[in-house]
Amino acid sequence: MSQINKLKIFNDPIYGFITIPNALIYDLIQHPYFQRLRRISQMGLSYLVYPGANHTRFHHALGCMHLMQKAVDVLRFKGILISPEEENALYIAILLHDIGHGPFSHAMEKSIVEEVHHEEISLLFMNQLNVEFKGKLDLAIKVFKGEYHRKFMLQLISSQLDMDRMDYLKRDSYYSGVAEGNVNSERLIQMMNVDKDYLVIEEKGIYSVEKFLMSRRLMYWQAYLHKTSLVAELILMRILKRAKELTLKGVKLSCSEPLLFFMEHKVTMETFDADTLDLFAQLDDFDIIGALKAWQKNDDFILSTLSKMIVNRDLLKIKLTNEKVDLEELQPLKERFAAENNISIADTNYFIFKGKIKNQAYSKEADPIRILKKDSSVEDVIESSDQLNLKSLSKSVTKYYICFPKQLL
Amino acid sequence: MSQINKLKIFNDPIYGFITIPNALIYDLIQHPYFQRLRRISQMGLSYLVYPGANHTRFHHALGCMHLMQKAVDVLRFKGILISPEEENALYIAILLHDIGHGPFSHAMEKSIVEEVHHEEISLLFMNQLNVEFKGKLDLAIKVFKGEYHRKFMLQLISSQLDMDRMDYLKRDSYYSGVAEGNVNSERLIQMMNVDKDYLVIEEKGIYSVEKFLMSRRLMYWQAYLHKTSLVAELILMRILKRAKELTLKGVKLSCSEPLLFFMEHKVTMETFDADTLDLFAQLDDFDIIGALKAWQKNDDFILSTLSKMIVNRDLLKIKLTNEKVDLEELQPLKERFAAENNISIADTNYFIFKGKIKNQAYSKEADPIRILKKDSSVEDVIESSDQLNLKSLSKSVTKYYICFPKQLL
Amino acid sequence: MSQINKLKIFNDPIYGFITIPNALIYDLIQHPYFQRLRRISQMGLSYLVYPGANHTRFHHALGCMHLMQKAVDVLRFKGILISPEEENALYIAILLHDIGHGPFSHAMEKSIVEEVHHEEISLLFMNQLNVEFKGKLDLAIKVFKGEYHRKFMLQLISSQLDMDRMDYLKRDSYYSGVAEGNVNSERLIQMMNVDKDYLVIEEKGIYSVEKFLMSRRLMYWQAYLHKTSLVAELILMRILKRAKELTLKGVKLSCSEPLLFFMEHKVTMETFDADTLDLFAQLDDFDIIGALKAWQKNDDFILSTLSKMIVNRDLLKIKLTNEKVDLEELQPLKERFAAENNISIADTNYFIFKGKIKNQAYSKEADPIRILKKDSSVEDVIESSDQLNLKSLSKSVTKYYICFPKQLL
Amino acid sequence: MSQINKLKIFNDPIYGFITIPNALIYDLIQHPYFQRLRRISQMGLSYLVYPGANHTRFHHALGCMHLMQKAVDVLRFKGILISPEEENALYIAILLHDIGHGPFSHAMEKSIVEEVHHEEISLLFMNQLNVEFKGKLDLAIKVFKGEYHRKFMLQLISSQLDMDRMDYLKRDSYYSGVAEGNVNSERLIQMMNVDKDYLVIEEKGIYSVEKFLMSRRLMYWQAYLHKTSLVAELILMRILKRAKELTLKGVKLSCSEPLLFFMEHKVTMETFDADTLDLFAQLDDFDIIGALKAWQKNDDFILSTLSKMIVNRDLLKIKLTNEKVDLEELQPLKERFAAENNISIADTNYFIFKGKIKNQAYSKEADPIRILKKDSSVEDVIESSDQLNLKSLSKSVTKYYICFPKQLL
Repeated sequence: MSQINKLKIFNDPIYGFITIPNALIYDLIQHPYFQRLRRISQMGLSYLVYPGANHTRFHHALGCMHLMQKAVDVLRFKGILISPEEENALYIAILLHDIGHGPFSHAMEKSIVEEVHHEEISLLFMNQLNVEFKGKLDLAIKVFKGEYHRKFMLQLISSQLDMDRMDYLKRDSYYSGVAEGNVNSERLIQMMNVDKDYLVIEEKGIYSVEKFLMSRRLMYWQAYLHKTSLVAELILMRILKRAKELTLKGVKLSCSEPLLFFMEHKVTMETFDADTLDLFAQLDDFDIIGALKAWQKNDDFILSTLSKMIVNRDLLKIKLTNEKVDLEELQPLKERFAAENNISIADTNYFIFKGKIKNQAYSKEADPIRILKKDSSVEDVIESSDQLNLKSLSKSVTKYYICFPKQLL
Repeated sequence: MSQINKLKIFNDPIYGFITIPNALIYDLIQHPYFQRLRRISQMGLSYLVYPGANHTRFHHALGCMHLMQKAVDVLRFKGILISPEEENALYIAILLHDIGHGPFSHAMEKSIVEEVHHEEISLLFMNQLNVEFKGKLDLAIKVFKGEYHRKFMLQLISSQLDMDRMDYLKRDSYYSGVAEGNVNSERLIQMMNVDKDYLVIEEKGIYSVEKFLMSRRLMYWQAYLHKTSLVAELILMRILKRAKELTLKGVKLSCSEPLLFFMEHKVTMETFDADTLDLFAQLDDFDIIGALKAWQKNDDFILSTLSKMIVNRDLLKIKLTNEKVDLEELQPLKERFAAENNISIADTNYFIFKGKIKNQAYSKEADPIRILKKDSSVEDVIESSDQLNLKSLSKSVTKYYICFPKQLL
Repeated sequence: MSQINKLKIFNDPIYGFITIPNALIYDLIQHPYFQRLRRISQMGLSYLVYPGANHTRFHHALGCMHLMQKAVDVLRFKGILISPEEENALYIAILLHDIGHGPFSHAMEKSIVEEVHHEEISLLFMNQLNVEFKGKLDLAIKVFKGEYHRKFMLQLISSQLDMDRMDYLKRDSYYSGVAEGNVNSERLIQMMNVDKDYLVIEEKGIYSVEKFLMSRRLMYWQAYLHKTSLVAELILMRILKRAKELTLKGVKLSCSEPLLFFMEHKVTMETFDADTLDLFAQLDDFDIIGALKAWQKNDDFILSTLSKMIVNRDLLKIKLTNEKVDLEELQPLKERFAAENNISIADTNYFIFKGKIKNQAYSKEADPIRILKKDSSVEDVIESSDQLNLKSLSKSVTKYYICFPKQLL
Repeated sequence: MSQINKLKIFNDPIYGFITIPNALIYDLIQHPYFQRLRRISQMGLSYLVYPGANHTRFHHALGCMHLMQKAVDVLRFKGILISPEEENALYIAILLHDIGHGPFSHAMEKSIVEEVHHEEISLLFMNQLNVEFKGKLDLAIKVFKGEYHRKFMLQLISSQLDMDRMDYLKRDSYYSGVAEGNVNSERLIQMMNVDKDYLVIEEKGIYSVEKFLMSRRLMYWQAYLHKTSLVAELILMRILKRAKELTLKGVKLSCSEPLLFFMEHKVTMETFDADTLDLFAQLDDFDIIGALKAWQKNDDFILSTLSKMIVNRDLLKIKLTNEKVDLEELQPLKERFAAENNISIADTNYFIFKGKIKNQAYSKEADPIRILKKDSSVEDVIESSDQLNLKSLSKSVTKYYICFPKQLL
C-alpha cells in the first residue's frame, strides 16, 4: 500500500534514517497506544535545565529498534543464527519495552500510580496489543518476560548493556547537549557476539564498555539527577500527591478526565483492567502540565504555589551534600515559613524537606556484562578491566539533599 | 547573587554553551512571559513528520541571542563601533523578537486570533516589559520598530539574513535531522561587515549566502511546507475554527480558560489591552493539544473527527500539484462523504478542501542582502552571483493542494 | 585466517566503520599498488589553504566502496536484483576507479606524464591486477569500461551522481572544514532506484540532488579552485616542467629514481608497459615533495626559487578576474622582474603568467541525472526542478587569473 | 597589509575558524621553522591503523592556540587579570611548545637523535626565533621555562590538563575516528579558574575532568599504543638504527642531506648549534618515508626487509600480554629465522624482539589537577572524586609485547 511505503523511513538526526522493517511493526507504531509516546517527554522535567531536552519516548523507542537492527546484522555476520521470527520478536519487544511509561513517570509512580510499576504496564499493553494483532506478539512477549531459552535476546532488550541504554544515553546527550554522555553505540554493537546463548563483548571492546559505563554515570549526575531536575521532580511529585489528597477530600480540581480517574482511584495490578489501561493510555505530558497551569489559580495555597514553581521555573532551593542531613536542622525553617505564610507546620513539609539519591553505574549483583577473551574464555567485565575503574564504578554513591523556599535563604 | 551565577550558562547542543551577558537579560529570561516560550514548539506540528522536532521557541530565542553576541564580536573586531547600550538593545530585541508567537501560530492566526499579527503582539509584550523594567527596553524597542538610525541593527534582527533565520535554519535542521538545511552561521557572521550603517557581506562569503538561501528554500519544501505538516496544520486550523463557531453558538467546550477567552472574544489591536495580553501569555501548546485530546469525545462529529486525526496522527490525505485544482472536481467526493457520514455538503468543507502554498527563497522586493565587493562597492547579492541561481531563487513558487479523507481514495 | 579477521574493519570518522566485504577485496587493498594510495593526498596541495586537508586517496577509495555497499543494500531492498558477482564487481570497480592517479595528478598530467590520462592508468592497473588475481576482476573491468549491459552499474561508479563524487565531497568537506560542501549521501542513496537498467533518483529526492550540485559547485570555487590551491598547483606544474627541461638538457637533479625515470622519458599509452607501470606505482607525494625540498638548493634560479615557494608556502600573488587579461599588461612586470633577477624575459614566464579556469556544476551534455517521477515517468533533473537553479548550475563559469611575484606589487 | 588580512583566519573542521590574533603571531606562523610542521604528522605512523589520521603538528599547534584564546576569554570573564603582554606570551608559548618535534619523533629519539629531547629543541627554536624577532619572545620563553611567577600560565601550556592535551585528544579523535577519545574542551575551559596563581577547575566540572582522563587513557591504549602503530614504530626505530650503523660503517645510503647529517653525527645539547638547528629544521616526514622507499632496494637484507614492511604495511606480527615474556622463548624463533634467511642470530634481533609499554592516565607525582570546591578550598582531583576512578587512573599499567615475522607463526 502506498501509504505504508511513504512512511517506511523516519528521519533521525542521530542515525540518519530509521527504517521500519515490516508492515506489522508499521501497524504497531501507528497504534494510538504507541502514538501516545509522541506526547511523553523522555527526560521528564530535565528541559528546565537543558532547554534542548524535549525529545520523546516515541523517538527513543524507534531509536532502540534501529540499534536492534544493527545488532542483528552484526550477530548474523558473525555467524549467530537468528530466525526471522526471532528477529521480529526482538524488534517488537524493544519497540514496546517502555510503552508502559506514563508522563513524568518517576513522579507519577511516587504519587498517583504508586502500586504498579511501568514495566508491568508495558506488559499489559503488549498483551492487549497481542489480542488485537491476533497472537503475533507471542514470541516478543515470551522474550520480554525472560521465558525464552536464548538469553542473549532478553539481554539485548534489557541488561546492563542493552539497546535501550545505548539509545537513551546517545539521544539524551544529543538533545541536551551534554556532549560527554555520548556513547559509541556503533562500536559497542560491532564488538558484540554470542557465546553459549549469552551476549558477550569481544575483549578489544573493553575500553568502549568502560567508556559507556562512565558516560552512564556522568549522565546520572549531570543530567538525570541534576539538582534542578531533581527538585523539579520532587515538587511535581508533591503537587500530584496534594492534588490526590484534595480530590479524595472531595475538592473538584480542574483537570483532564483520565488524570481525574487516577486521582480518584487507587489502582493495583489486580484492578488494572482493560478500561483502566485505556484510561492510562490517554495520559500524557499534556494532562499533567495542563493541570499544573490550571492549578496555579487554585485556592489551595500548597497546590497553587507549587504549581507556579514548575510553570514559571521558579523552583525551591536545593542543596546537595555528601552527609545525611539531620531532620532537626529544618525545624527553624519550617517554623519561619509556617508563620510567614500562615500555614501549619505539617503543611510546610510540602516546601521544606530532605531525602537522598543513589546511583551505581554498574551493578555487581545484576547480570554482568560478559567479556569474551582472546582465549575464548568469558568473564565479568569487572574482572577483565586492567585498572580498577570498573570496581569503583560498581560502588553505589549516595547523595543527600534538602529543599526549601529561596526566600528563606 | 549566587542564583544568577548558576544560571549564567545554558547548554546548547548546537553552540556548546550560551552565555547570558548580564543581569537584565537574565531577568527578562526569567520572566513568565519568556518562560512560556518553553511550552511553545518552534516547528508547530512538524514533529508529526520529524519526530525529533520538539524544540521550542525558548531555545531558539536564546540561540539567536548567542549568534548576536558573535556578530557583535566580529563587527567590533572589524572596527565597527557599537556602544554597550546598543549592544544590549541588540540582545534584548533579538531575544524578544518572537515573543508574540502563540502556540501553532500559523493555525491560530487563521482561526481564533485573526486580526492581530504576532509581530504586533511581540511589541505589546516588549512595551509591557518596558514598563516593568522601568524603561530599560527603550532602545531595543526603537531598534525593533525600525526607528533607530543605524539600519544594520534592525537588519541583524530582521532581514533576509538575520540572526533569527540563521538560528532557526540551523536549529530546525539539527533537531529534525534534515541535514541539508544546516547553514554555516559561523562563516556567514565572519563575513559580515557594516558599510554606511547597512549590513553587508564581504564578497568572499557569496557562496555561503547562496548556500544559505538554498538551505532556506530546501527547509521550506522539505520541512515547513512538507505535505504532512501542512495537512496537519490545515486540520488544526479547521478544528479551532469549528470550536470557535460552536462556542459562539453557545456550546460549552472543554478547554482551558485562556483558550476559551480567545474563542469567545474577537480580539483586535484596539481591544488588545493588558488583561488580554495576560491571557494571551497563558496560552501555549498545552492548551491546544489538551483541548484536542478532550474534544476527541465531543458530540460534534466535525470537532471530534478532526481532533482524533491530530492526536492519533491519522490525517487527511493530501495531494500536491503544480496546477490549480478545479473546485468542481471535489464535488463528487463531497457528496459521497456527506452521504456516508450523514452530514451536510457544507460541513464536508471541513474534510475536503483545496488551497495553495507559496514560497520565495529570496525576495527582490524586500531589503536586499548587500555584498561588499573587493573594490568597496556594494551591490545586491542577486547581481553579484556569478551564476543565475539567485535570480531563480527569487522566483516565487506556488503549489496547489487538495485534502480529503483517506477512505475516499 | 586470523590476520584477515583483524583487518576486516576500518575506522572512518565519517561513516563510523568501513567493513571489508570479502577476502578478495581484502587482498586487493593489501596489494602494494593500493597501499601506495596511502601516500597520495586526495586534495593535492589544498592543505596549504585548509590545514586539515591531508586525507588520502586510500581513504577515499575505501569510503566509495562503503557507499557502494549502502547503495547495493538500498537497491536490493527496492527489489532490484544484483547478483553476488555483480555486487563484487561494483566493489572492485569503485575501489580501483582512481588507482591510476599519480601524486598531485593535475600538475603531473600537465608536466611530466602529459599524454596518458589517469583513467587509462587505472585500467592498466586493473588489468595487471586481473592477471595476478587470475581473472577475478573480469566483470569489474567490463563494468568500468562501460561494456556491461546494466548501465546503472557504471553510473554508480562514474556519472554525475556517483559514489565517487558523494564520497569526495563529503570527505573533502569533513577534512578541510568547508562545512557547506557536505552532502547528504545517505539520503541520496536512499532515493536511488533503477528504471530500465538506468540509475534514477526518486522525485522526492530532488532537493537533495540540487543541494548536492550546489555543494559540488561550492567546493569547486571554495576549495578545488581556491586561488591559493590554484597558484600552488600552477607553481608545482612549472617546477616539474622546469625539472624535466633541465634533465633533458643533461642536468642531474637530486630526486628519487622513479621520478627521474618520468623526467627522462616521454611516456605514451604505447610505451606504458608493465615496467613503466611498476615505476609509476612507486611514485607518490613523497617523491614530489622530497624533490622540491632538495631542489630548493639547486643552482638553477627558476627551479630553486619556485621550489622554495611551495615548501615555505610563500607563493606567487594571484588575482582572479571575470574578464580575460591582456597579455601585454604583464610585459612591464616581466621586464622589471627580468632586470631585478638577471634572467631572460622568456624565463620570467615561470613567474609571471596568466590563464583561465572553468567549472560547470552540472553538464547538460553528459549523461543526465534521471528523476523518477511519481507517475513513473523519468526525466532529466534539469527539467524536474521547479526553479531555474539547475539550468543555471549547468552554465559553465570561467574565471581568469594572473600570477606574479609579490614583490612586484 | 592585505596579505595578512587574507590569512587571519584558518578553517578548522573542529573549531570552525581559528583566528590569528596579531601580526607577530602571523609572522611566527609564516616562518619556515613553523611551516615545516605542515610536513610532520601528529600521530606518526598511526595512519597505518587509522587511515584518517594524517593531520599534522602544524594544525595541532594552531588548535592549541585557539583553545588558549578561549581560556584567556573565560579567565578574564571571571575577573582574572591577564595583561596583553601575558596574553601574547601564552599564545606564543603554546604555538611553539612542540616545534622541537622531529618527524616520527618517538622513533627518532630512540635511534638517531638520542641524546636531545624534543622539548630542549623547542627551546632552541624559540631562542633562535627570539633573536630574529628582536626579543619579542622573551616573556613566552620565561613562561615556557617555568620561570614566570604566575604558575597558571605554565599550567595552561604544560600540565596534566593543558591546552596541548585538550587539543590533541580532540583532534586525534576527530581525524582517526576513535570517537570515544573526544573531550569536551569547551566545557573544561568554561570550568577553569585561577586560585592563588594556580589553575583550578571548579567543582561542578569534576565529571568532565574524569571523562577527560578516561579519554586520554582510552586514546593511549586504542590509538597511541595500538599494537599495529606500536609495531610500526618499533620497526621504524630499527630501520633508523640500522641505517645509522651502516652509515657509520661507511655505507653510502640514499637519503636526503639533512637526514644523512643526523646519521653521520652524534648530536648532543652541547653540539646543537645554529647550523645543527637549521639542518634539524629541514627534517620532516618526507625525509624519513622517502628514505624508506629508497632503502627497499638496498643490498642490506635488514634495511630493505624492514623498509618494505612499512612501505607496504606488511608488518611484523605483534603479541601483547600482561605477563613479562621470557627471552629464551624467542630463541627457537630466532634460530629458525636465521637459518631460513641466512643471517646471524645477532641480526635476527631486528626482527624478533620483545619489550614493554607503560601508561598512566593521571600521575600522582606530577603537578596535580586542582579542584576548586564550593567552599573555596582547593584539592587534588584525586581526592575530590566521589568514586575511586581517579585513584585507579593513576595506577601505572604495563603491557609486554613480542614481535616476530608472520611467516614464523
